[in-house]
Amino acid sequence: MNLLNHPASPQVTPQVLAFDIFGTVVDWHSGISREVLALCPDVDANAFALAWRAGYQPAMRRVMSGELGWTLIDDLHRLILEDVLKDFGITHLSDGQKQHLNTAWHRLDPWPDVVAGLTRLKTRFVICTLSNGNIRLLTHMAKHGGLPWDCILSAEVFKAYKPDPATYLGVARVFDLATAQVMLVAAHQDDLAAARACGLQTAYIERPLEMGAGQPKDVSPDPANTWHARDFLVLADLLGC
Amino acid sequence: MNLLNHPASPQVTPQVLAFDIFGTVVDWHSGISREVLALCPDVDANAFALAWRAGYQPAMRRVMSGELGWTLIDDLHRLILEDVLKDFGITHLSDGQKQHLNTAWHRLDPWPDVVAGLTRLKTRFVICTLSNGNIRLLTHMAKHGGLPWDCILSAEVFKAYKPDPATYLGVARVFDLATAQVMLVAAHQDDLAAARACGLQTAYIERPLEMGAGQPKDVSPDPANTWHARDFLVLADLLGC
Repeated sequence: MNLLNHPASPQVTPQVLAFDIFGTVVDWHSGISREVLALCPDVDANAFALAWRAGYQPAMRRVMSGELGWTLIDDLHRLILEDVLKDFGITHLSDGQKQHLNTAWHRLDPWPDVVAGLTRLKTRFVICTLSNGNIRLLTHMAKHGGLPWDCILSAEVFKAYKPDPATYLGVARVFDLATAQVMLVAAHQDDLAAARACGLQTAYIERPLEMGAGQPKDVSPDPANTWHARDFLVLADLLGC
Repeated sequence: MNLLNHPASPQVTPQVLAFDIFGTVVDWHSGISREVLALCPDVDANAFALAWRAGYQPAMRRVMSGELGWTLIDDLHRLILEDVLKDFGITHLSDGQKQHLNTAWHRLDPWPDVVAGLTRLKTRFVICTLSNGNIRLLTHMAKHGGLPWDCILSAEVFKAYKPDPATYLGVARVFDLATAQVMLVAAHQDDLAAARACGLQTAYIERPLEMGAGQPKDVSPDPANTWHARDFLVLADLLGC
């Protein structure tokens, strides 16, 4: 039993666990840094990875505000990449190399506890993705990392990016469930807060090294979450799997 | 090597195999008959299963013509069920029993070759569903039968029912592929013909007992298909898995 567990209130049993992906399931900082370094040995790969990721939320806001039409994350990643390459003064990459680098997001490795944890959680719950990543990206990533999803749900299905309520409510609607029968699992308190506002249960997962070893993240518990777990193995313990 | 194999022309290697579900992957006739019989021991379960399934295409046509708004298969199955129960003079079922019977489509068993065949095909290709069944139904079915999909695609994602081109073209668009890099696998020549008209490769699978042992189905090859295979194991042989 994890002492950081905070059951907020007596809860209905969730039927579906929906997982945030970037940072929660996969380690984007290491994966992106490694691939950047392979193509650009002289660049500060840590800073490059952080800059690429930092462009993610603003790009999605441009879509959700209507400034950009509906755009998949693969295409947003490419738009941001062009800016970051310019900012870092990198001009030697061919279009093919940029295309390859852009799909580094498809090849991110899961954190060490993920496959074993999901395999246990899958025995009692429907486990699905709920990511702003597009279906293609999430499918390739699952194949790359051996992630045993029951189903891949994405912003692409709902034509809206988290934290838009259409995404959280969309999971409940797809599975014909009350919102409290769905639990979002994520390493980001803002994502969990938005899910909770829609009536979902929430589980916070500590990923202190999400931003790299140089920038440990605050992983303090928020008692508003239904559960708080160090990793997916602890979450499986807490949920009785 | 299957002598019924008909490679129509030199082909590009497909990246994604998209599978029709009802009849191709799962044996709906046996599953539905068994569950009907459990609730209604005196009914002609074979005739009931055939009647329920016969309502499927007309119901989808009502949606695609605009007569009905967008409706999930779970809800269409329930509409048809009410008519079939009336036609068969069955009046003793409670709402809960009807609800349970309606989800018999979630609990259909795969044909015996399916799990082993998909497991082999998954090593070389992305394997996904392309079914008119809704995501919830397909996810429950996959869990029930241990179907190792990389991704569940459904008419629900494309808001159109096969044979609408939006479904076949939608798979290619989701995976950012040319249509010839996608292959539809199905036990129905009309589904395959519609996919071919959109540029997909096609593989026909023989399911002679789809309509029950009393009504063996014509499983003659159509040379227009890229491949013709007795079952998924033969398809895996043909595709070098």
